[in-house]
Amino acid sequence: MVNCGSSSLKVGVFEVGKTAIEVFKASYEKFEAGSCSYKITRGGKTETGEAAFGDIAAALRALPHILRGHRVTELDAVGHRVVHGGKKFRTTTILDQPTIEAIKTLTPLAPLHNPANLLAVHIAQEVWPNLPQVAVFDTAFHSTIPPRATTYAVPKAWRDAGLRRFGFHGTSHKYVAIRAAEEIGAPLRDLQIVSVHLGNGASVCAVSRGESLDTSMGMTPLEGLVMGTRSGDVDPGLFGFLSRQLGMSIDEIEDALYSNSGLLSLTNSSDMRSVEDRAAKGDANAQLAIEIYAYRTRKYIGAYAAAMGGLDAVVFTGGIGENSPSMRRRICDGLEFMGLQIDHERNQSVELADNAAPQIQAYGAKVRVIVTETAEQLMIARETAAALAPKAPVPQPVSVAVSARHVHLSRPAVEALFGTGYQLTPAVPLRQPGQWAASERVTLEGPKGRLERVAILGPERPGTQIEISRTDGFALGIDAPVRDSGKLDGTPTVRLIGPAGSLETGGLIVAARHIHTNPDDAERLGLADGMLVDVHIGDEERGLVFGKTLIRVGAGAVTEMHIDTDEANAADIRVNGEGSLVPDLRAVAVPSREA
Amino acid sequence: MVNCGSSSLKVGVFEVGKTAIEVFKASYEKFEAGSCSYKITRGGKTETGEAAFGDIAAALRALPHILRGHRVTELDAVGHRVVHGGKKFRTTTILDQPTIEAIKTLTPLAPLHNPANLLAVHIAQEVWPNLPQVAVFDTAFHSTIPPRATTYAVPKAWRDAGLRRFGFHGTSHKYVAIRAAEEIGAPLRDLQIVSVHLGNGASVCAVSRGESLDTSMGMTPLEGLVMGTRSGDVDPGLFGFLSRQLGMSIDEIEDALYSNSGLLSLTNSSDMRSVEDRAAKGDANAQLAIEIYAYRTRKYIGAYAAAMGGLDAVVFTGGIGENSPSMRRRICDGLEFMGLQIDHERNQSVELADNAAPQIQAYGAKVRVIVTETAEQLMIARETAAALAPKAPVPQPVSVAVSARHVHLSRPAVEALFGTGYQLTPAVPLRQPGQWAASERVTLEGPKGRLERVAILGPERPGTQIEISRTDGFALGIDAPVRDSGKLDGTPTVRLIGPAGSLETGGLIVAARHIHTNPDDAERLGLADGMLVDVHIGDEERGLVFGKTLIRVGAGAVTEMHIDTDEANAADIRVNGEGSLVPDLRAVAVPSREA
Repeated sequence: MVNCGSSSLKVGVFEVGKTAIEVFKASYEKFEAGSCSYKITRGGKTETGEAAFGDIAAALRALPHILRGHRVTELDAVGHRVVHGGKKFRTTTILDQPTIEAIKTLTPLAPLHNPANLLAVHIAQEVWPNLPQVAVFDTAFHSTIPPRATTYAVPKAWRDAGLRRFGFHGTSHKYVAIRAAEEIGAPLRDLQIVSVHLGNGASVCAVSRGESLDTSMGMTPLEGLVMGTRSGDVDPGLFGFLSRQLGMSIDEIEDALYSNSGLLSLTNSSDMRSVEDRAAKGDANAQLAIEIYAYRTRKYIGAYAAAMGGLDAVVFTGGIGENSPSMRRRICDGLEFMGLQIDHERNQSVELADNAAPQIQAYGAKVRVIVTETAEQLMIARETAAALAPKAPVPQPVSVAVSARHVHLSRPAVEALFGTGYQLTPAVPLRQPGQWAASERVTLEGPKGRLERVAILGPERPGTQIEISRTDGFALGIDAPVRDSGKLDGTPTVRLIGPAGSLETGGLIVAARHIHTNPDDAERLGLADGMLVDVHIGDEERGLVFGKTLIRVGAGAVTEMHIDTDEANAADIRVNGEGSLVPDLRAVAVPSREA
Repeated sequence: MVNCGSSSLKVGVFEVGKTAIEVFKASYEKFEAGSCSYKITRGGKTETGEAAFGDIAAALRALPHILRGHRVTELDAVGHRVVHGGKKFRTTTILDQPTIEAIKTLTPLAPLHNPANLLAVHIAQEVWPNLPQVAVFDTAFHSTIPPRATTYAVPKAWRDAGLRRFGFHGTSHKYVAIRAAEEIGAPLRDLQIVSVHLGNGASVCAVSRGESLDTSMGMTPLEGLVMGTRSGDVDPGLFGFLSRQLGMSIDEIEDALYSNSGLLSLTNSSDMRSVEDRAAKGDANAQLAIEIYAYRTRKYIGAYAAAMGGLDAVVFTGGIGENSPSMRRRICDGLEFMGLQIDHERNQSVELADNAAPQIQAYGAKVRVIVTETAEQLMIARETAAALAPKAPVPQPVSVAVSARHVHLSRPAVEALFGTGYQLTPAVPLRQPGQWAASERVTLEGPKGRLERVAILGPERPGTQIEISRTDGFALGIDAPVRDSGKLDGTPTVRLIGPAGSLETGGLIVAARHIHTNPDDAERLGLADGMLVDVHIGDEERGLVFGKTLIRVGAGAVTEMHIDTDEANAADIRVNGEGSLVPDLRAVAVPSREA
């Protein structure tokens, strides 16, 4: 694992099995005329000193020799941290020449970081020509952030030029979210987590059900929290004001926002430990800096809880997050109204050796608060190993059905809409055995408008569920979340109107695309219940990949994929089935019809 | 009341008594070669048409004639909307020549708006030379925002040049917060309100206990929410990126952020009604624009609830806030976890005639949701009348005591710290009758450190209260809020350590400065219980005004002002009392000593 920055080099060798163990660790920094300082840890022993490397390249070229000296042999692959993957690189990627060229084109988005990362790749190819080289992108974990959070409200020409939120620290946010879920003992997929990474750079990430939903860094690592030397959020009018009042150029302003802002500009120190000590002695600038730092972080926690519709855990990591009990306390105080409260003793006595992830919330508090060391290096090693693992089975065809909007009703809902004791009339059988469309219809009403004659699917269910498309949501004027069938906690309400009455009920969702299948087909296709797969629909030119399609295995189910009308339109599939579909990746789609 | 923008003129004449009634209303816009369109409402009748005014100045100069034509006479004063009051103008201000000159110096902060506002002042002075002219500032309501929210983490030279958060729409936020409190039937001082102003410009304001605590617009009206043509929040790295990639200048970028961003850039329309209609028909750009708009607003509501430590009400106002049930719904959905939920029927059937402020939360929801028309014009008239009302009585001397950190203990706390049945030992009587300092001391402990030998004041109280200075808070590592004595809801906890044990307890505050007094002295000084007054301490050069000092009238109390050690240091008062104090404004301070 190689993490090569613009002024330092970190190397870790991991044995990756069920767990990943770091067997060798080295860092090289403070490069100047012909020498640098280094630190090497091997077999529990650490040595530090001066090495005769004048730059990062020299240190990298000497690595095979150094590793042999420490009896580290038999490397299987080299994983590289690459800061910016742009829109193109959404996952960990094996580096071949076209990939490297593609990363080079992203340099304008990360002018300091990406060239340093690529230098390391270049040298590693030289010294280990036979090992696979893998890129783990800081931005990749954030590729799930939806357009509502990635899009800046700026001219289209700018967005077309690449201006959008990417987010950074992805490897760290992903690691600590996984670590927090382990500690809580609940599936990551069921948790709403805010990850708070407070290091020299700092960012907050809303990790919703295992995916990054939003993060405070944007197109660049300048946006968001106050950092050691970076400003974080500022008024965009700042540039014009400084240009007119102080005659400054864009480059001068940007340089100061990166290198001479943040804690440094407020206190003359970018080191939070020193700032905290001075504040305790009455230094008003240090006091204000701490207040701003904590206040901004607290606001992001509130904002991301609102973005996720709830909060199960806050995880602190990074140098400040790990080591400052008073900063953790200051950030969390005042959030009791959302069920978040820290326990004084637990917060005080945090010990982080051996990947510990202690919980420090007050007893009985609804929201967990967890502290853990981030482990980006370990995560890079894990991701590298996973990228090289054998792939899932070959693609298989699966048919596709387009689900128009419909409702599943509970007994009380049927009675509210159609009268006491009323029984729905099965009219059209569906392909899934035992299921049918009723001859009755209902009307949906929202603040913007109505949808008339919406199909009712039977039989009745314990809970009412209303499945619409995204566009239907805009017609109703309600923001329906994308959910798996049956996962209805916190879903919005909508009014159902029937001949005998109406009712306001929760359960409004855009059904997440899914594939129904039975145990036999599942085995044949290499699928398992709960698995997420990619499905390719359409030809090379106009085709779409539907990522994260959920597999639902049930006895007797007919194997088919269900998508909604918006998805069908996007893939140019008409309900009556004339799409031109070719095999790829994991599945071929053949359109069929469902009510 | 004159609200003069860069391209339109609005005039209202109000009779201000207990309530304010608009008796005449006129607006002039679309000025071009020698003509403009106008609309006049008088006595329930509205006329519209073309008028022969080529610019705003011409319309203003004709106003006395127009008013006479509508039998509107006997004006008492002219109130002007002035957008930017900078740091200097924290309240409504009567306009004399030095004041006008001072406002002119603020032009760099509001280059479009302030010159237009001042043109109106200039002409109003010409046509009504005998009437007082009053400026009501858009920024004034936000003068209470604390430094943690006004300060950008940028170089000191920039902050010295005037770069800070000011906030706008202050008159609107103040009005709707007052209106919401009326509707709720609770004192504004007890409420935590988020005011959401969604017009062509849009901003959110955290109105905490009647004061602006934070707001989404910053130094300029560019920051914050997505607006009709403005971007709201963007990554500050945007300028450098556009400069390097598209060769754009600061002026070009800024111009586009003001005039060609926001809804307009996302959908080619800045009109939310049209955007909503297109979204309902499946226009993906319009759908995304609505999602971004609502999502950003929802995040600000979450952030400001976190900033205030809770939320009692959300108030929607401005064209979109007043008229789009689906936008209100979309913003609020997902906030159920903090007790906020809208009722579908109530949201749908909002009627805003006659200053109505309907509540639209679901039955039983903890957080009120209120919709009301903003009434900036009315508010400007009210503020103008108030500024001209006779002033409070002349200054009177009052002595000042410096309160060092101390605790008041409850019975259970005394027993936890000193043992069952223990009684504190009165040692030193205090000036307030019946109160004393005990010979016992306690230790306070927080995540950052300890404060030893802290005084205990008796007698015991029903609830434990710990009063420290702001610097003590940093020594402990806890963010103690400034509170009036006894207002302890949601205050942070701290550990108290005594000889027999320790306890973790809430009630940690920085005591808000206050003046104890008795009914006789109160009458003599022109004070009343609950009143907030300004107290001037020190000489002209080094003196300080302690604003918003709370008056607490109690039978038998000795009249004196209590400040904490940080405040005493700031005013250069030592505990043993040698400050040099002169009379001014409302009170003279003479130092005395309290434990």
